[in-house]
Amino acid sequence: MKRIVRCTLISLFSALVFIQMINAQSDDSFVPVASNIDGAEFPRISDDLRVWLQIKAPLAARVQIGGDLLPSPDPVYLKKNEEGNWTMITPPVVPGFHYYWFLVDGVRMNDPGCNTYYGWARPTSGIEIPTKDEDFYIPKNIPHGDVREHWYYSDITGKWRRAFVYTPAEYETSPDKGYPILYLLHGSGENERGWSLQGHMSFIMDNLIAARKAKPMVVVMDNGYAVPKDSTAYPQSTSRGNQWVVLSDVYLKEIIPKMESFYRIAPGKGNRAMAGLSMGGGQTAFIGFNNPGLFSSLGFFSGGGIAVDIVSDSSVYGGLFSDAVSVNNQFEVLWFGAGTHEPSFAERNAVIKEGFEKVGIKGIFYESEGTAHEWHTWRRCLYEFAQLLFKKGTK
Amino acid sequence: MKRIVRCTLISLFSALVFIQMINAQSDDSFVPVASNIDGAEFPRISDDLRVWLQIKAPLAARVQIGGDLLPSPDPVYLKKNEEGNWTMITPPVVPGFHYYWFLVDGVRMNDPGCNTYYGWARPTSGIEIPTKDEDFYIPKNIPHGDVREHWYYSDITGKWRRAFVYTPAEYETSPDKGYPILYLLHGSGENERGWSLQGHMSFIMDNLIAARKAKPMVVVMDNGYAVPKDSTAYPQSTSRGNQWVVLSDVYLKEIIPKMESFYRIAPGKGNRAMAGLSMGGGQTAFIGFNNPGLFSSLGFFSGGGIAVDIVSDSSVYGGLFSDAVSVNNQFEVLWFGAGTHEPSFAERNAVIKEGFEKVGIKGIFYESEGTAHEWHTWRRCLYEFAQLLFKKGTK
Repeated sequence: MKRIVRCTLISLFSALVFIQMINAQSDDSFVPVASNIDGAEFPRISDDLRVWLQIKAPLAARVQIGGDLLPSPDPVYLKKNEEGNWTMITPPVVPGFHYYWFLVDGVRMNDPGCNTYYGWARPTSGIEIPTKDEDFYIPKNIPHGDVREHWYYSDITGKWRRAFVYTPAEYETSPDKGYPILYLLHGSGENERGWSLQGHMSFIMDNLIAARKAKPMVVVMDNGYAVPKDSTAYPQSTSRGNQWVVLSDVYLKEIIPKMESFYRIAPGKGNRAMAGLSMGGGQTAFIGFNNPGLFSSLGFFSGGGIAVDIVSDSSVYGGLFSDAVSVNNQFEVLWFGAGTHEPSFAERNAVIKEGFEKVGIKGIFYESEGTAHEWHTWRRCLYEFAQLLFKKGTK
Repeated sequence: MKRIVRCTLISLFSALVFIQMINAQSDDSFVPVASNIDGAEFPRISDDLRVWLQIKAPLAARVQIGGDLLPSPDPVYLKKNEEGNWTMITPPVVPGFHYYWFLVDGVRMNDPGCNTYYGWARPTSGIEIPTKDEDFYIPKNIPHGDVREHWYYSDITGKWRRAFVYTPAEYETSPDKGYPILYLLHGSGENERGWSLQGHMSFIMDNLIAARKAKPMVVVMDNGYAVPKDSTAYPQSTSRGNQWVVLSDVYLKEIIPKMESFYRIAPGKGNRAMAGLSMGGGQTAFIGFNNPGLFSSLGFFSGGGIAVDIVSDSSVYGGLFSDAVSVNNQFEVLWFGAGTHEPSFAERNAVIKEGFEKVGIKGIFYESEGTAHEWHTWRRCLYEFAQLLFKKGTK
């Protein structure tokens, strides 16, 4: 009897592992994608970045792919083989991180071979398409910082909130040193886990810091949504503008004071920056431009809510942009990035650049070659932006 | 034109949020489950812990539930209503954490209303059924420690591995203090994220430490799987026993030295303990009993691989258990827990208890009333076990 429990468990686990192994056809030019869960044979990828998708659904009448793996807005269908596996090989996919899912007879489901990532407002399959410039975001044999899950109670929302906080490796061994702090915001439909998981931000920062290209800094990644517990305190809180008022209050009254007391943060505006991607770029503008005394530098990575009105409407943000000298004095770095494969964002940055140049506001503008509205653009943005931060120290 | 990007993003996000809202029938006795993703109306739960599941699949011929939400091994089918929603209301569910999924015409998919958790060897829907004794694992207005994602390179496996490491709140403000360390192992098909996410271990530890019921300690949660890069160094590495040899080496040569140099850990066996749930309990026995000089205390939470042979076969673990006095001298705490609703585990603990009593080995045995082979049993185990640790200090 003494081996029964052990054997049962072995059998159970073997079943668990192998039940999901899908019988692969032999095509040696495709290998399992590095971002797959352990043991998953699909999705597979070729050297030229074609992706071989497969899902077993013998009874389904139609299987379609959704998400942003493929650029085409037209529906793309998989084909069924004799074993009931629906399969397709995509054209070469744009390098970077892509969310996707299957629609099996119209029911959205994740790819069982992938990890899930919070995107599109729920846990969603994600795949890493290899990039040629991965060197800056892969882990190396250098000191590594930690990304800490930090819980705190928010009075404004009446909820426990979670931030992820990067502390550099040397933070552990320099107990008397205070560090500058960067608040880094995610995009629409994502959450506070995005930057460390999809964005590989800790490896980017580790690599920059080890190469002395960026100052060691603490990076706070919090959630971009905030619903007030007392909606009478925030009338019309269903509008996005008003949601951002709530989020701004959560930053000013809760996140910033809590983070800068719990962690060893150097004081003053000169040691504080904010940046965000897509929706988070708009929030960075909303919070940063409305509180110019707080942040020395601001970064807009495909900034989705930052409008060209900063160069066309002298009344926005309390008239902040009507005085170029004042803007230049108040900010060390105003940084705008976008991918060349997301033209609407790149075009808007061009309008802002032109407007800034016309009145003499200093801005830095970056184009990420060959990338779209996805995480590889934003990894590159972080890599570029972080190198420029906290050069002047406290001011 | 200046509002176009903004408006597009508002529309896009609204669509994202509401696309998943399923039109709920009005039954006021059911409310969305607290563990749902933001805005998800299903699954819903009643006061008496019945769960109302729903998924839209108008074209499906059959929808079934899988996982461990329901104790019955028989297949349970949902019923389709006029709107194409498949729905069911379960009998009252055992309190605690349950993994589950839908089988839509035989295709396994997660519940779109739930978060996913790594279990059953892939990201899997999970649901929290409220417990009456939740007080010990919910967050409170007390100091909170961080759970840190810590990456390191493993020479043995040739891979980057990730540990989650809990550091207590006071760790931040006591730079000269070394802390005892507990290595805490997950179960089969799960990963290093389980204890902090499904297990709420940080809140359990925060609560214990704030109430001075447990010593402030560092807790390391690493992955329970290890495949050697050089399989010739570990012949027959496909057997579980041999996989555990690899894992043991990873602990002894990599995890323990790396963690105890990166974090401020008090030296010596008296400051080092290990515990694990299910498969992790077996691994704790394998690593701990084979290296009795390393750990002062060991915990087995529904320990799946710890066999009764420790009391029936005097040759196991190098004859360790043939000398009761030596065992009692070598270990401060040998702790065995199981839920009353997982009889095979409870029964084995009873056999070990009887065997220990017969020869005079000191063990502590705990039964978790009314819980099964799931996380609520293991939360309670951690709560009980952690209070007993590191009472003697270094020895």
